[in-house]
Amino acid sequence: MHTTFLYKSDPERGRQWAEVFRRREPAIDFRIWPDIGDPAQVRFLAAWEPPADLSARFPRLEVLFSSGAGVDQFDFAALPPQLPVVRMVEPGIVGGMVEYVTHAVLGLHRDMPRYRRQQAEGVWQPLPVRPAGQRRVGVLGLGSLGQAVLAQLVGLGFDCAGWSRSRHAVDGVKCHAGADELPGFLARTDILVCLLPLTDSTRAFLDARLFSMLPKGAGLVQVGRGPQLVDADLLSALDSGQISEAVLDVTDPEPLPAAHAFWRHPNIQLTPHIASMTQPLSAAEAVLDNLRRFEAGEPMVGLVDRSRGY
Amino acid sequence: MHTTFLYKSDPERGRQWAEVFRRREPAIDFRIWPDIGDPAQVRFLAAWEPPADLSARFPRLEVLFSSGAGVDQFDFAALPPQLPVVRMVEPGIVGGMVEYVTHAVLGLHRDMPRYRRQQAEGVWQPLPVRPAGQRRVGVLGLGSLGQAVLAQLVGLGFDCAGWSRSRHAVDGVKCHAGADELPGFLARTDILVCLLPLTDSTRAFLDARLFSMLPKGAGLVQVGRGPQLVDADLLSALDSGQISEAVLDVTDPEPLPAAHAFWRHPNIQLTPHIASMTQPLSAAEAVLDNLRRFEAGEPMVGLVDRSRGY
Repeated sequence: MHTTFLYKSDPERGRQWAEVFRRREPAIDFRIWPDIGDPAQVRFLAAWEPPADLSARFPRLEVLFSSGAGVDQFDFAALPPQLPVVRMVEPGIVGGMVEYVTHAVLGLHRDMPRYRRQQAEGVWQPLPVRPAGQRRVGVLGLGSLGQAVLAQLVGLGFDCAGWSRSRHAVDGVKCHAGADELPGFLARTDILVCLLPLTDSTRAFLDARLFSMLPKGAGLVQVGRGPQLVDADLLSALDSGQISEAVLDVTDPEPLPAAHAFWRHPNIQLTPHIASMTQPLSAAEAVLDNLRRFEAGEPMVGLVDRSRGY
Repeated sequence: MHTTFLYKSDPERGRQWAEVFRRREPAIDFRIWPDIGDPAQVRFLAAWEPPADLSARFPRLEVLFSSGAGVDQFDFAALPPQLPVVRMVEPGIVGGMVEYVTHAVLGLHRDMPRYRRQQAEGVWQPLPVRPAGQRRVGVLGLGSLGQAVLAQLVGLGFDCAGWSRSRHAVDGVKCHAGADELPGFLARTDILVCLLPLTDSTRAFLDARLFSMLPKGAGLVQVGRGPQLVDADLLSALDSGQISEAVLDVTDPEPLPAAHAFWRHPNIQLTPHIASMTQPLSAAEAVLDNLRRFEAGEPMVGLVDRSRGY
């Protein structure tokens, strides 16, 4: 049986995927959009933005892979209802996120934004230091990224907690679950890291009410998705001192418009959605591992539960 | 036999030491300078700057402890020749240094200085990412601080090497030793971390010749001692692009004078000697552990080899 794997995302990355497929699974016909070949042969599709009318266009399509970490860019209502959808879970994404969040948390922990302002003002003034064990870090979202980030922060000695919708257990981490346990989690969090997926229930999640439940002067690291943050509420919380500093890697929209207040706020560090990038080589390897599982009838890593949306 | 332990350093920290001594060794008469009691009873002294004429003033003095990580502030020629001198080795110093260097290395690795400049200019532009395994970090100095820093950087996946005067072995780290192996170590180092002690042979160590042996565009993290760096050579190396970015926690002198070029250089991040601070409670515990070893005739942790100067 002829199998086409169709790739529809950044073509330069696609050529790196093609190399990995050619080496590991030469029997698969790997094609980069728009060179789709015979649409009736397409069994697998990896895409960031899939084409419309999937079932009509590719009648034999069996799995849709997201080419990046999220699946919030997919319009699930427009996808064939029985089509398995798989998130990208690969070591490149995880490593980048661990690096970014570790850097951001250590920077807030050690007052680096204030030291940068002191340098600009020519002020040599050491600030009080708190041991990591007395700094309470809280991570929203306990999926593979949240767990990897927490393992690193626990290793650095921080007092770590996590929150997610459903119950999780993570070594060395106080885990909280569900809406009832959110206020208690927030009340003990000096530095809040958001790694939630974007769903209907996390849209506008980071709002004034949530900020008000943090200790005064808490720090925020937002590496989830832009629409989770209510921009005006963050600006108010920074102005009142409820939030002391924010590190934002995602915004809504992206790129952030030139006139947006985040660009010039002295207590906001802004990066252009670079915390974590899929590494083409390890992404292709991860997809091939999932293909092997699929053909063997085993569960795929990152299979999306459509009722949760991630 | 009556034993006085005399403390001559920051008095507020001294009161925290006193608490620990009172709890763990109530038989020791712990005194904070200038309340020295009977000088003939002083067997142990912890000081940052010891008083002059130590042997005349304290005839029964048996050990001098440095109250901080370094001993370069001591004038060894003025100390009684047989007096054991002990550096401070305690988890507070180590933890702070690991935090600072990890933050600095991750920041250089992930182009954070450039992203900060882009934010100031309103530019949303992702830069190419390199996996940690393709970033070569090199640490000068393989004592307890260097080894702890390297353990963390190895854990983050960096390609790590170390250099010291004498041969060391560190898990997962390519160790280089002595002057002969310095050029090879520098040639493979994208981010150079200096954790050397200040001695006659490390004064002006970070100079134009050393910088020229690094790959073009290398980063520098200086957390050793200010006089190790030739300021003018760093400025030239930054101007030529030989060094891309420098993170400096130590300067010569400290505080850095207001007119110094480091304050305003766009590629220098300057902090006021805060990378690592002795934590009074764990420092007092570490000194008490060493006292127990001393009384039992065991070797003390951090005992200085005066021929090396550290």
